Amino acid sequence: MALTDLLFGRRLATDEEGEQRVGVLTGIPMLGLDALGSSAYGPEAALTLLIPLGTAGLGYIGPISTLIIILLLVVYFSYRQTIAAYPHGGGSYTVAKENLGTPAGLFAAAALMLDYVLVVAVGISAGIGALVSALPVLQPYTLALCLSILALITVVNLRGVRESGLAFVAPTYVFIISLLTVLAIGVAKTLLAGGHPTPVTAPPRIPTEVTTASLWVLMRAFANGCTAMTGVEAVSNGVSAFREPSVVFARRTLTIIIVLLAVMLAGIAFLSRVYAIGATEPGQVGYQSILSQLVAAVVGRGLFYYITIGSVLAVLALSANTGFADFPRLCRVIAQDGFLPSAFAHRGRRLVYSHGIIVLAVLSGGLLIAFGGITDHLIPLFAVGAFLAFTLSQAGMVEHWRRTGGPNARRSMVVNGAGASCTGVTLVVVLVSKFHEGAWIMVLLVPALLALFVGVHNHYLTVGRQVATDEPLDAVNLVPPIVLIPLRGWSRVSRKALRFALQLSHEIYALHIADDERTLVELEDTWNQRVREPVLAAGLSPPKLIVITSPYRRLYAPLLETVQELQHSHPDRDIAVIVPEFVGSRWYHFLLHNQTGTLIKAYLFFSGRRRVVVINVPWYLSA
Amino acid sequence: MALTDLLFGRRLATDEEGEQRVGVLTGIPMLGLDALGSSAYGPEAALTLLIPLGTAGLGYIGPISTLIIILLLVVYFSYRQTIAAYPHGGGSYTVAKENLGTPAGLFAAAALMLDYVLVVAVGISAGIGALVSALPVLQPYTLALCLSILALITVVNLRGVRESGLAFVAPTYVFIISLLTVLAIGVAKTLLAGGHPTPVTAPPRIPTEVTTASLWVLMRAFANGCTAMTGVEAVSNGVSAFREPSVVFARRTLTIIIVLLAVMLAGIAFLSRVYAIGATEPGQVGYQSILSQLVAAVVGRGLFYYITIGSVLAVLALSANTGFADFPRLCRVIAQDGFLPSAFAHRGRRLVYSHGIIVLAVLSGGLLIAFGGITDHLIPLFAVGAFLAFTLSQAGMVEHWRRTGGPNARRSMVVNGAGASCTGVTLVVVLVSKFHEGAWIMVLLVPALLALFVGVHNHYLTVGRQVATDEPLDAVNLVPPIVLIPLRGWSRVSRKALRFALQLSHEIYALHIADDERTLVELEDTWNQRVREPVLAAGLSPPKLIVITSPYRRLYAPLLETVQELQHSHPDRDIAVIVPEFVGSRWYHFLLHNQTGTLIKAYLFFSGRRRVVVINVPWYLSA
Repeated sequence: MALTDLLFGRRLATDEEGEQRVGVLTGIPMLGLDALGSSAYGPEAALTLLIPLGTAGLGYIGPISTLIIILLLVVYFSYRQTIAAYPHGGGSYTVAKENLGTPAGLFAAAALMLDYVLVVAVGISAGIGALVSALPVLQPYTLALCLSILALITVVNLRGVRESGLAFVAPTYVFIISLLTVLAIGVAKTLLAGGHPTPVTAPPRIPTEVTTASLWVLMRAFANGCTAMTGVEAVSNGVSAFREPSVVFARRTLTIIIVLLAVMLAGIAFLSRVYAIGATEPGQVGYQSILSQLVAAVVGRGLFYYITIGSVLAVLALSANTGFADFPRLCRVIAQDGFLPSAFAHRGRRLVYSHGIIVLAVLSGGLLIAFGGITDHLIPLFAVGAFLAFTLSQAGMVEHWRRTGGPNARRSMVVNGAGASCTGVTLVVVLVSKFHEGAWIMVLLVPALLALFVGVHNHYLTVGRQVATDEPLDAVNLVPPIVLIPLRGWSRVSRKALRFALQLSHEIYALHIADDERTLVELEDTWNQRVREPVLAAGLSPPKLIVITSPYRRLYAPLLETVQELQHSHPDRDIAVIVPEFVGSRWYHFLLHNQTGTLIKAYLFFSGRRRVVVINVPWYLSA
Repeated sequence: MALTDLLFGRRLATDEEGEQRVGVLTGIPMLGLDALGSSAYGPEAALTLLIPLGTAGLGYIGPISTLIIILLLVVYFSYRQTIAAYPHGGGSYTVAKENLGTPAGLFAAAALMLDYVLVVAVGISAGIGALVSALPVLQPYTLALCLSILALITVVNLRGVRESGLAFVAPTYVFIISLLTVLAIGVAKTLLAGGHPTPVTAPPRIPTEVTTASLWVLMRAFANGCTAMTGVEAVSNGVSAFREPSVVFARRTLTIIIVLLAVMLAGIAFLSRVYAIGATEPGQVGYQSILSQLVAAVVGRGLFYYITIGSVLAVLALSANTGFADFPRLCRVIAQDGFLPSAFAHRGRRLVYSHGIIVLAVLSGGLLIAFGGITDHLIPLFAVGAFLAFTLSQAGMVEHWRRTGGPNARRSMVVNGAGASCTGVTLVVVLVSKFHEGAWIMVLLVPALLALFVGVHNHYLTVGRQVATDEPLDAVNLVPPIVLIPLRGWSRVSRKALRFALQLSHEIYALHIADDERTLVELEDTWNQRVREPVLAAGLSPPKLIVITSPYRRLYAPLLETVQELQHSHPDRDIAVIVPEFVGSRWYHFLLHNQTGTLIKAYLFFSGRRRVVVINVPWYLSA
């Protein structure tokens, strides 16, 4: 197990779970990367739509950013209340389900699940995209780099919750400190220069065009800018990952994240305005991101520039980690309610939900491959899922306060109601303005996921009905099963299996698939000496040897035929097939043995031969 | 099973194998795509090295091509003899092993295995690369396209041998016919124009530089050109895939492939010369492949141009199929000799060696991802593996004739000896001239693979020694095992499992992991009424209920503890753990259930608790 230990860390016992919980300092990178990282693409996405307006577009970045920051604060107050009301993790799913009913909860869950997959794919590809535009020599390896980062994040997450937070602490804080420093220097220079600072490195000139902004363009710019708000719900989903008192820690973490995000958005908008920084066309020669232009204008292209831009890349690529922290948790609660396969509710070796992590890695890897590692077009799709979840969760909170009452219920209802209305209106704006650009995909995928949930749930209900019974155990007419052992030759393994068979039953058949005559005769001699005679000597009825010649050395078909014949000649008896299985002492032994047993079981069970039971007798290899 | 049937075709019985064999017409696409497709990159690879020579380089293409064609014919006669001597498939592995000993065989096998992985990756990426240079809009999706083609070829191959041949018949013959037509027209025009034809579309001008060719440049050009010979061994590897008389069909197929390849190489060299077509720098603006220039010069850029170039792309991308036809077969013979895990020797549902196919897909997919779908640099690596295998195989044949004798033995020895010498010298040339460009990778990987072979073999030998015994069965002191059943609640499933347990033993323990007090009391009532009382009424000793409270709903740790305690209190007894398992009627049920049984087995076995046997009692879902 040495290799798996190295890669995934040693197994954790359940009582180590307390230690795996985090505080504020680790909570910010773990649950806030997505929210903070979106400051790098939100303003950019909004400004890109203003390119055709030329310098006239600069005037709109202020109002649009202000609107987004107000929305952010509304959502913040709303989620603060959710954290208090749902200290065990009030994801949109839980809140919507408990207050608005299961369908609303599943609706929110479907939107969020798609969002997490998008967050992972887009975060990674945005980071690598920026890296590649800085170092064009890496351009042919875009997808390979994306997939490597994905693999890295997946492995880190399979190692466990706490370590995944720790691994991302450094880049997150470098990003926060360096970006805030740049913004502070920029604001200071602006004030000193009386509002008109001279850029250290001048940004590309914005053409002065005289197009006026239509409401449609401004709406779309606002919808694009709203992607800056994605990831805000992560903290309320992950309350249970915090140390006790988890509500306090979670709220404090959320406050810090929101304040940082608001300051960054405001600073970026302000400095873009005063330095006259506009978006450049992505994918074209001369493309340069807003943040890159801004940092270069404020501090020039020195060491500090590269540290800041490097940390932006790291945070973007790693913002995918938020998806990895939350997606498995979300799948788990859905699975516990019976809407996803129960495997999602099981914890793996490191107390994480390995199935959810792996499914997320596969889905987002698929997206990355399908889009060749370039997922610009997917960025607007986030906003749909995020705002759908925001709206449902806050509408749920309104209902929650109405039901539970309490001294501040009315005030809380107003806060959450305002949140729900604002995000609801924004959702409609985003859906309408982004419908042609891909929001329609969400309109298709959300119902598809809902259908999956319902299908899984119905299956579990059907199975529950099939196996439910009040009938007591039937303990009369008990007869030992007929035992069948597939036998290759004489070895310690077959000897152990035969001895176990004798412990169970006195009607034993051994099946040998022969390839040629010579080994056949040998085997019959061996059989008489080593099996028949000792069993007769012990006063028992000896096992019978069945030999079938199969020139192609095929095992399964003759085995199945034999089982059929035995079932036919013993219509009331169970047939127990004993399969000796090698158990290795090293993980890679699994690759060398161990499959025949599983295959025989699968083959017999899936052939639908009822009354067949498979018994795995392990043989332990000592090397 | 409907989905797997659709994707992979219905299961094939063993006696359908005859029908799965092929004749010449299907054999050419199946085993010849690699050889024929290499005519598209061999001359190109040679000419690329002559770029610095300008027009002076054109003079060397004739002699270099002639040398390659002579080498090709030597190898051809050599392999004709191999086919006759090894009618069951005389791959380099078999021939080298039987005549030069196992180490030589494994050496050849390692070289060939690496070659097949390269062939798949490079074939696909060369095809997609050409497509992308024709349609630059697809450029960002290079890797995604490569991986899609890989997935397609993998699925087609998992469907079975014959269908994989059929799927590639059309593009192969379109390629052969259209390229031969172009060459014929070109030669005719040249003759009519007295040796100086006018190109329909003029190729880019070659600069007249006065650099003279150094021997080093010519050697490297020759080494590059030798990649045109890769894939020639495929037919002798795959003799067993042909209909009877397979030797006749295989030889005829090989002859046709070699004649076609020689004609194409000669034609391309001749027309490059007379039309003054040189290579252009790959990856640069204005790049155009030799074949594209040649076809445009002879017939212009009309419909016929696009058909020809389209078929070149198809053949390149599908030449990967040769790797898929041969790699699994090679793995199989190595596995049968105990140098690779035995799973490689098992056939899957469609009589193909599924494990080999999947491993090949994963390895070449990994190469494609690592190189971002652009694998130009890997092309020269082929030649190392291919010529190593050629040389070992033909040296083996010399030894074969020496041992077996016969009327024509001396002549055959000369033929194979000439082949071995030529390919051996070429191997040295290729290794030396390509060492810095990547041939050193082969020098590292071949020994690594050899180490793997030896490791696997030693493991199987060790296991063989461990389990070998002459001791007869010990049939005294037989006692039924102690039975342990993990129990969730009362259902038909637990009822069936308990009844089966009573058939085996009278010492039965049921283990319930409780989450809270209430269900605990309920369960104890149920247990008394539905289990204890009926068993007591039947005059048997009743099963005992063990309840463990585990707030985290963890199953494995309490189960393992219980097993340990039972082993401790019954030091001489086997412990049989009965695991009820759901068996679904649809393939996707596997995703919804069925894992706990496998996990419990793995957990118990890998925990190293000896004397534990796992019994899987299936419960068949009816919906």
